Amino acid sequence: MSQIKIIDVTLRDGGYRNDFNFTVDYAQTAISQMIGAGIPYCEIGYRNGSFVRKHEHGLTSAVDARYLSAVHAAAAGRIDLCVMVHPHNVDASDFQLLQEHGVSMIRVCLRRDRLEDGLATVRLAKSYGFQVSANITHVTTLGPAEISDMSLRAENAGADLLVFADSNGNMIPADVDRLITRISSRVLIPLGFHAHNNLSLALSNSIAAMDAGAEYIDASICGMGKGAGNLHLGVFVAYLQRAGIRNDYDLVSALHLSQLTADTVPASSLPLSLTDVMMGTYNMPFDVQYRLDEVVKTHRPASTFHALQILHEQGNRKSEKPIKPLTTTLSPSLASGGIR
Amino acid sequence: MSQIKIIDVTLRDGGYRNDFNFTVDYAQTAISQMIGAGIPYCEIGYRNGSFVRKHEHGLTSAVDARYLSAVHAAAAGRIDLCVMVHPHNVDASDFQLLQEHGVSMIRVCLRRDRLEDGLATVRLAKSYGFQVSANITHVTTLGPAEISDMSLRAENAGADLLVFADSNGNMIPADVDRLITRISSRVLIPLGFHAHNNLSLALSNSIAAMDAGAEYIDASICGMGKGAGNLHLGVFVAYLQRAGIRNDYDLVSALHLSQLTADTVPASSLPLSLTDVMMGTYNMPFDVQYRLDEVVKTHRPASTFHALQILHEQGNRKSEKPIKPLTTTLSPSLASGGIR
Repeated sequence: MSQIKIIDVTLRDGGYRNDFNFTVDYAQTAISQMIGAGIPYCEIGYRNGSFVRKHEHGLTSAVDARYLSAVHAAAAGRIDLCVMVHPHNVDASDFQLLQEHGVSMIRVCLRRDRLEDGLATVRLAKSYGFQVSANITHVTTLGPAEISDMSLRAENAGADLLVFADSNGNMIPADVDRLITRISSRVLIPLGFHAHNNLSLALSNSIAAMDAGAEYIDASICGMGKGAGNLHLGVFVAYLQRAGIRNDYDLVSALHLSQLTADTVPASSLPLSLTDVMMGTYNMPFDVQYRLDEVVKTHRPASTFHALQILHEQGNRKSEKPIKPLTTTLSPSLASGGIR
Repeated sequence: MSQIKIIDVTLRDGGYRNDFNFTVDYAQTAISQMIGAGIPYCEIGYRNGSFVRKHEHGLTSAVDARYLSAVHAAAAGRIDLCVMVHPHNVDASDFQLLQEHGVSMIRVCLRRDRLEDGLATVRLAKSYGFQVSANITHVTTLGPAEISDMSLRAENAGADLLVFADSNGNMIPADVDRLITRISSRVLIPLGFHAHNNLSLALSNSIAAMDAGAEYIDASICGMGKGAGNLHLGVFVAYLQRAGIRNDYDLVSALHLSQLTADTVPASSLPLSLTDVMMGTYNMPFDVQYRLDEVVKTHRPASTFHALQILHEQGNRKSEKPIKPLTTTLSPSLASGGIR
């Protein structure tokens, strides 16, 4: 199995939490830290609005030239930028602009009731040389034959990737397994999955998708997203590490990015303690504090996450990979990730 | 498969969040509402303290005669009361007191390093006629042979039930499946599982435990519990309903109890929006608001949860069971569970 490819969707789906009002500074910092965490894809927003167009868009529901220039600079060719589009919002001039600013992937929302428009948009995006993802939304409102038909037609229209979105957060792992298994026997292009966390199954459903063969998994920082939110990026990286699934993602960097976001982005918050995530990943008991104090005194780690990582490496008696220094210019205090 | 038996552990494990300082009023109200939700077991606390005894206990880490009388009255013989004990904290006089106040089940914490004490406590509790649960804690720090040995010896000591606690929140579903499957082939008594949510897998691990044959599942209101917390009772009931697993639990009552707890118990909070849980369970899209307004106008439901339930029943065109009126004397406002 090749490494699972994470698509970070914070700036797009997370925008439902703050009316897409991220700042350019935050977007640039987040992208830099995603690069540090090894994330290969960053979805930077909607071009010209979400399904329901608003007269005034926030930054990441407009994706204008100024914003594109800024994120292109931050990406520095080290992460693939993706833009989501609703077919009725875009035309050739939009794709021209996105292409000029180094966007790699267009994600086209496919709806059953506007399928022809969606497929035309897939074809148009292909003609501009983008990698194109066909995203079938609200998959739990569609019958198996409809999903199969939409998938085949998206593949025929030239989609490079097919993503299923559990927009209502209604799926359970058995559903995801069935869906991915069945469609992967019908199409040749790789599959992806986009979870929502209504039943607190975003991670389990994503695991089921991976186990059934999906190669692309959507996640967002702190799980920011519409309604109950998405798969929590930091928790997903923790799971990959805990389960021993081959990956080059950096857990400490992913958790620092979560902490930064919770601290600085309005309408964002930590759905669970990141220290607890780390302790669960490393099988540490609740009373680890006394050993942690020793590590802090001896190693002067840059954060509690680093301290826990050092403690874990010591426990394993072998350091499989060197502990990565903080690449951020921010100095997260130990207190911000402190043990209660 | 018989109905999965939920053991609510809020007043015990949730006590780590507020130093066991629940009020008698809250305990009585919660027990009444648990009865309304169909929960068969309520763990009311530790007798004489947790593993590390403190000089001053909160209400549910002492479980004294006054508290026992109050919860016994609230239970009214309609829910089984459980008390957790650490062997070094209790003797015959404690079991005498608990028996006189109608406690049904003793849950004995079994630790590898104090196993003989634990087994003696199991035998002593049995001699007082209690149902006895042997709870193997920190199961991820034990080897398979150790777990197997402890399980067999607990069964031989007379335990009626064997519960495995993922105290560090380190397990993934594959681990849980392996553990429950293997032990169930070695002992005859029923098995249970106690999850912690460090990797946001409390629900998935509990599902894995059920699928492998566990019959008892620990949950707590809002997931209140040590560290990252336990399995969220309301989400678990939602899952059982969503997955079509036979049960007599009442989702709306379970969600009202969660809301009440988040609103009134310090150090408690909703880990996720209960409206989102309900919408996920019922496969409702984010823009359900306009249809909900109609339901509110026509049916005057007692809460948003009732309104969503009515909408769901209407959508199904058949009302499989009548909508249960609110049994609580509280009047949760529609706003408290309102759609964003």
